Amino acid sequence: MIDVIMDGEILKSITRAMVALVSEARFHFMDDKIHSRAVDPANVAMVIFDVSRENLEAYSIDEEKTVGVDVNRIYDIAKSIKRNELVELKVEDESALKVKFGSVEYTVSLIDPSAIRKEPKIPNLELPAKIVLDAGEFKKAIAAADRISDHVVFRSDSTGFYVEAEGDIDRIVFHMSEAELIEFNKAEARSMFSIEYLKEFVKVAGIGDLLTVHLGTNYPVRLVFDVSGGKARVEYILAPRIEAE
Amino acid sequence: MIDVIMDGEILKSITRAMVALVSEARFHFMDDKIHSRAVDPANVAMVIFDVSRENLEAYSIDEEKTVGVDVNRIYDIAKSIKRNELVELKVEDESALKVKFGSVEYTVSLIDPSAIRKEPKIPNLELPAKIVLDAGEFKKAIAAADRISDHVVFRSDSTGFYVEAEGDIDRIVFHMSEAELIEFNKAEARSMFSIEYLKEFVKVAGIGDLLTVHLGTNYPVRLVFDVSGGKARVEYILAPRIEAE
Amino acid sequence: MIDVIMDGEILKSITRAMVALVSEARFHFMDDKIHSRAVDPANVAMVIFDVSRENLEAYSIDEEKTVGVDVNRIYDIAKSIKRNELVELKVEDESALKVKFGSVEYTVSLIDPSAIRKEPKIPNLELPAKIVLDAGEFKKAIAAADRISDHVVFRSDSTGFYVEAEGDIDRIVFHMSEAELIEFNKAEARSMFSIEYLKEFVKVAGIGDLLTVHLGTNYPVRLVFDVSGGKARVEYILAPRIEAE
Repeated sequence: MIDVIMDGEILKSITRAMVALVSEARFHFMDDKIHSRAVDPANVAMVIFDVSRENLEAYSIDEEKTVGVDVNRIYDIAKSIKRNELVELKVEDESALKVKFGSVEYTVSLIDPSAIRKEPKIPNLELPAKIVLDAGEFKKAIAAADRISDHVVFRSDSTGFYVEAEGDIDRIVFHMSEAELIEFNKAEARSMFSIEYLKEFVKVAGIGDLLTVHLGTNYPVRLVFDVSGGKARVEYILAPRIEAE
Repeated sequence: MIDVIMDGEILKSITRAMVALVSEARFHFMDDKIHSRAVDPANVAMVIFDVSRENLEAYSIDEEKTVGVDVNRIYDIAKSIKRNELVELKVEDESALKVKFGSVEYTVSLIDPSAIRKEPKIPNLELPAKIVLDAGEFKKAIAAADRISDHVVFRSDSTGFYVEAEGDIDRIVFHMSEAELIEFNKAEARSMFSIEYLKEFVKVAGIGDLLTVHLGTNYPVRLVFDVSGGKARVEYILAPRIEAE
Repeated sequence: MIDVIMDGEILKSITRAMVALVSEARFHFMDDKIHSRAVDPANVAMVIFDVSRENLEAYSIDEEKTVGVDVNRIYDIAKSIKRNELVELKVEDESALKVKFGSVEYTVSLIDPSAIRKEPKIPNLELPAKIVLDAGEFKKAIAAADRISDHVVFRSDSTGFYVEAEGDIDRIVFHMSEAELIEFNKAEARSMFSIEYLKEFVKVAGIGDLLTVHLGTNYPVRLVFDVSGGKARVEYILAPRIEAE
């Protein structure tokens, strides 16, 4: 038996995070948190979310349990939760997840977890540069880059953090100096990424949400979003693209 | 000669109500009210509206008169009326309706009433259950049901009022107890209806509008909406669908 | 070298104004203002904009200069400028225009001005009627007319200013009397115009913007919009259509 009550924004965020990469996922209801992770079918990106028990309004499980969730379906339901509304998730038997908010209760069939693609191990990455900024600003940079190119360079050095894109005839540079960043270690790093993935990732974030970028050189990037007013943590790991000389 | 001035919201509501079922209708300008009713081409649903003379800003007719109205056209015009704006309707000869608000006057040809499908008699229905609720809540229930099914069950018993829908693998239940309902007589009733019609009907209602549901068992339902701040009354009667055992 | 800082709304307005008729234009950075004008490929309409130096936050040019601008591209960029945000335009060499606002800098290739269609001379028109009104009201009149016809008559006489359109069965008249107009000389004039052009022109204006209409009889109309809080002036000249008797 699982019975959880949480801020509806959390359910929206974590299902939004997953649908960027997969349509089904295993949700682990653990003693101290709810956790899930998955890689996309092309093995280019990984998503991980964690919601600590202390950020839930109520949390009751009779034992640690893993359920298979149709995240598209749950995200679709979660979208109609109003701001500041609580939502209750309930698993009474193994077959169905009940989602209740306002006067409506949805009963959604669960998926056998063993039928869902095996979960990835989280890689151990050494990434020199650490940049903390407003996720809303980052979102605008990705949207601007998306208009002229399908890939983008993230770059960090002592002068700040850069997002750069080049089109056939145009070029765009997003730049934040140390003074404009929330936290910044000035380390040098530079990698190129696919905008197609990034523009899905940023949908999880709103203005005011914190984003921590861990960046290396020709290496995967870790994008850690604090979402739902800091109540949930969504992390994306994205493989780099090779820059043509 | 007909000359009426009314809150623009009323014209929006009553034409919105009609276009859910028909594109042309007879409007009766009577001594005490404006009235219209129509059935849809499939004979599944009826719509009735009434606007009492006391809810009009000005009302002047030289005799009771019936005109044939292209409701699609008038609804299309009414949509651009601003909140709190008054609208004047004028019929000077039999051929045209003038619709005036702000600085714009539309002249729309009338239709010969005898060319419009004969009006239905309003059936005399004995419906045991009476449920009064916020039309906005009902609208959300219909929208939620619409995502998983094309029909819905309305159910009433001593525990409250239920709207239930079943998809291939999902199920949704909307429930309001006596305490959450504005008025409720706890009578038992249960009928199934087509969502296709219901989702058109609820468009007439906004949050805060009152809806009275008169429900029987395997019998038509009457949905009475108080719209435009209570200044107009829109009623739909919808035939039930047969539930497969 | 050109270096200009202006209210972002100005850049939005002037590029919006140009894209109604052309995709490329020559921008003249003159001692006292920025100026551009162009005719559409069909030679039916002309657009002219002027931004006076005193309405710019900063303006520095080493000599008067003309650059060729892809206005579609710049308008597309300008759309993402936030309200009250300043934008900097910079031309360091002849090849590129830099557009900078917030943390983002766009570099857009310039076009050789000699490759852009030769500019028109501004015609000297004697137009008897002068009508000044809220551009937002005019916009609504054009939108209403657009629903029933593809051409519209502007008419002025001692009783006011009229915008009239006739559909197959409907008719719409927009009328403002002297009392409702901001300025009006009561002169008689009447010409017919294509709505297709007008509905593009009015996009440049918001509620509260002033529009001055200079109207003659079977003669071009001049529509002068004061936009961006009066900081920019956009003028359209539109050839009349011949009214069938």
